[in-house]
Amino acid sequence: MNGLAQTPEPPYWAVIFSAHRNAAAGDQFEETDQRMMALAAEQPGFLGVDTAASDIGITVSYWADEESIAAWRRNADHAFAQHEGRTRWYDAYQLRVARVERAHSFVRGQ
Amino acid sequence: MNGLAQTPEPPYWAVIFSAHRNAAAGDQFEETDQRMMALAAEQPGFLGVDTAASDIGITVSYWADEESIAAWRRNADHAFAQHEGRTRWYDAYQLRVARVERAHSFVRGQ
Repeated sequence: MNGLAQTPEPPYWAVIFSAHRNAAAGDQFEETDQRMMALAAEQPGFLGVDTAASDIGITVSYWADEESIAAWRRNADHAFAQHEGRTRWYDAYQLRVARVERAHSFVRGQ
Repeated sequence: MNGLAQTPEPPYWAVIFSAHRNAAAGDQFEETDQRMMALAAEQPGFLGVDTAASDIGITVSYWADEESIAAWRRNADHAFAQHEGRTRWYDAYQLRVARVERAHSFVRGQ
């Protein structure tokens, strides 16, 4: 384990979420973020997720197919979190759905 | 400006680079990283880049087409930085090339 999502051979799908947090977002963000990551991991077709945050936050989740992404978008708890994101937590975000065509990895000493 | 890459309507391409830094990587990483970001921005077909780093680093660069990505990979300065990345800076990384099919954005107050 090196802290990076381990995914199967392409093709599969990526949801690239980049966001600028609202400085006055208040509490419940971290808790909801953790809960959504755990909930996503239970969904059919979920392959993994990478997340990092500094000036902006980037979360890339990986999915087996577009149907899995559509089902996750419709999930009731997730839909509520999306609403909170728009009304409270984010000043701006970009969501991109992409088909991963090629991938390669490097691990030191392998 | 909200700190997020502003990209045209899909389709376009994304290069998703997720990496775990070598704790003993030493200097020159930040300098080279900044230089590569500036150099990428000068390449034909470059559309934008988002980057964030905490436990892992994620950089997503956006490109007009696959040819632009291939040309950037072959760029001599970039090729040297890739070599340094493998030999010194990273314990592990994943590089994914994906075709962005759909995108939407949110900006508060718009």
